[in-house]
Amino acid sequence: VGEFDLIERYFRVPSQQMIERLAASQRPLLGIGDDCALISLAGKPGEVTAISSDMLVEGVHFFSDVAPRHLGHKALAVNLSDLAAMGAQPKGFTLALSLPRIDEPWLADFSLGLFALAEQFACPLIGGDTTRGPLNICITVFGSVASSNVLRRSGARQGDDLWVSGSLGGAAWALSRLEQKRISFTSAIEIDALQALEQPTPRVELGKLLAAEGLANSAMDLSDGLSGDLAHLLAQSRVPGVLLDWDNLPWHECLKNASDAEKIRFALQGGDDYELLFSADSTHREALLKLTTTLPLPLTRIGSLSVLPGIRWRNAPKDLPALALGQAFNHFNRN
Amino acid sequence: VGEFDLIERYFRVPSQQMIERLAASQRPLLGIGDDCALISLAGKPGEVTAISSDMLVEGVHFFSDVAPRHLGHKALAVNLSDLAAMGAQPKGFTLALSLPRIDEPWLADFSLGLFALAEQFACPLIGGDTTRGPLNICITVFGSVASSNVLRRSGARQGDDLWVSGSLGGAAWALSRLEQKRISFTSAIEIDALQALEQPTPRVELGKLLAAEGLANSAMDLSDGLSGDLAHLLAQSRVPGVLLDWDNLPWHECLKNASDAEKIRFALQGGDDYELLFSADSTHREALLKLTTTLPLPLTRIGSLSVLPGIRWRNAPKDLPALALGQAFNHFNRN
Repeated sequence: VGEFDLIERYFRVPSQQMIERLAASQRPLLGIGDDCALISLAGKPGEVTAISSDMLVEGVHFFSDVAPRHLGHKALAVNLSDLAAMGAQPKGFTLALSLPRIDEPWLADFSLGLFALAEQFACPLIGGDTTRGPLNICITVFGSVASSNVLRRSGARQGDDLWVSGSLGGAAWALSRLEQKRISFTSAIEIDALQALEQPTPRVELGKLLAAEGLANSAMDLSDGLSGDLAHLLAQSRVPGVLLDWDNLPWHECLKNASDAEKIRFALQGGDDYELLFSADSTHREALLKLTTTLPLPLTRIGSLSVLPGIRWRNAPKDLPALALGQAFNHFNRN
Repeated sequence: VGEFDLIERYFRVPSQQMIERLAASQRPLLGIGDDCALISLAGKPGEVTAISSDMLVEGVHFFSDVAPRHLGHKALAVNLSDLAAMGAQPKGFTLALSLPRIDEPWLADFSLGLFALAEQFACPLIGGDTTRGPLNICITVFGSVASSNVLRRSGARQGDDLWVSGSLGGAAWALSRLEQKRISFTSAIEIDALQALEQPTPRVELGKLLAAEGLANSAMDLSDGLSGDLAHLLAQSRVPGVLLDWDNLPWHECLKNASDAEKIRFALQGGDDYELLFSADSTHREALLKLTTTLPLPLTRIGSLSVLPGIRWRNAPKDLPALALGQAFNHFNRN
């Protein structure tokens, strides 16, 4: 079996099969095999295209021994999470892959994880590139959203409630365990945290509903930790600060017995949550709590946006270490 | 100066400045800074979006000591070349960049080459990702083309004339010199060959004209060498073979005194030409020769598509080594 036959087998064929299963209106006009893919991104009048690109590097974004299936899932998930944060419907993605060698079991497993998630969101692989080199996965994803509904980082207003989906800190806690070579995850809670790290669920349905129903004034996805990401949201919205309620933060269950410092480290400064952070008028509280059951997905009101600068706390423990806005994960500072 | 300030300075600021210079209709709705870029890709009714993604890896696609400015140019050029091959108008691109370290002179120079070419084709940088890791550049480019005019690889017909733009083999010849550590390029011809390798000009105007005027039945860009790329065009068009005219091949001037074996190696099997290969009805010969002067860009009729399988030659030298369709550059086989 030749090298390019394997690429054909694990990428082009599954892509073609998935596209054939899609409704006609969801199919790209031209998939893998020509100089470009062709896709009709102009669904309805007023719709615009949302585009995001993320690059995952071995040793920086994932460990060398991660299951390729989880890597395939995560590489697409982090991009779909960006679409979710804009309220966009996924339409397709390209995959550029640099591989040190052609490794059939690796490709088979990676492809499995990638296409399982693609299938779940009806988001087909439409093109890309494969080359030799240090392991690097670059996915670019395309979605559609009505321009009048787009969720931006810049729309937050003073007085907005601040909400977050799911729970915080599980992924960073699991990462920390893996970094300490503690690779055994046994309880359901521990396994859930590991899954948050390796197979995050992009909050696409939530994003689409927030956009379509006009329930949020601003939104972003949490990739680098609440405190750092929140700083971006506030800066782009020109809102000076936030009042957070310590008791209302949706700590991942794995942090139940953690110290306050650990909670801060994993849930506020840790990365990889891929939950949606959004601000909303207080008039939407009831509607948002209803979403919790219809999605179903926990949505938690964690505080409110304020004219007073920085992060202030309600119900904080007495010895809470100081925490500035913007203390977050930085790939360039990480060893 | 912080690391992210440099990214801001060399990517976000030039992107913003370029976008401000664009006509209102060419501007993205939202550029770098949110979870996604927003772009209106539905220009006119019947237009579809062409998308291509290419990844360049240090040591595979370029030498470590290439001028960063040329690398910035080439990374975008190879993607624009894919749009050209479909007849699409460039609309924007994303850049995902993995860097071993933050090197300000490198970033400044890379950015210069990247934005100079982006400016030339009114194709703004609209988003992307920067991370730490082995040097890797992944660009994804978006363009628009009327669906009825798209140039595909699959449209060639038996009897079509086969045409190619520009000249062939200069880039591969220059690459071969660099591989032999012969880094001195002095004559105008040698410098032109080096430029073909390091700063190819994507044939966007040619592609758009071929598409808009309906002058070509099929097209693709030459990235892996004429003989390999031609095999793809024929296979996708289900045309068995081609009759090529040796005397009509537009050898790059640097191959004037080359042996026949060298001509084959550089111009037929060598890669990186980034010229357009296209097939056309013989009724369009006059119109195509006119394009040569209006563009201006040499267009050469190199043969015709045939029912007889494989590559056959007219005017070939007697001792011409056998050449099969599909003998082309392969990144995985390259050392």
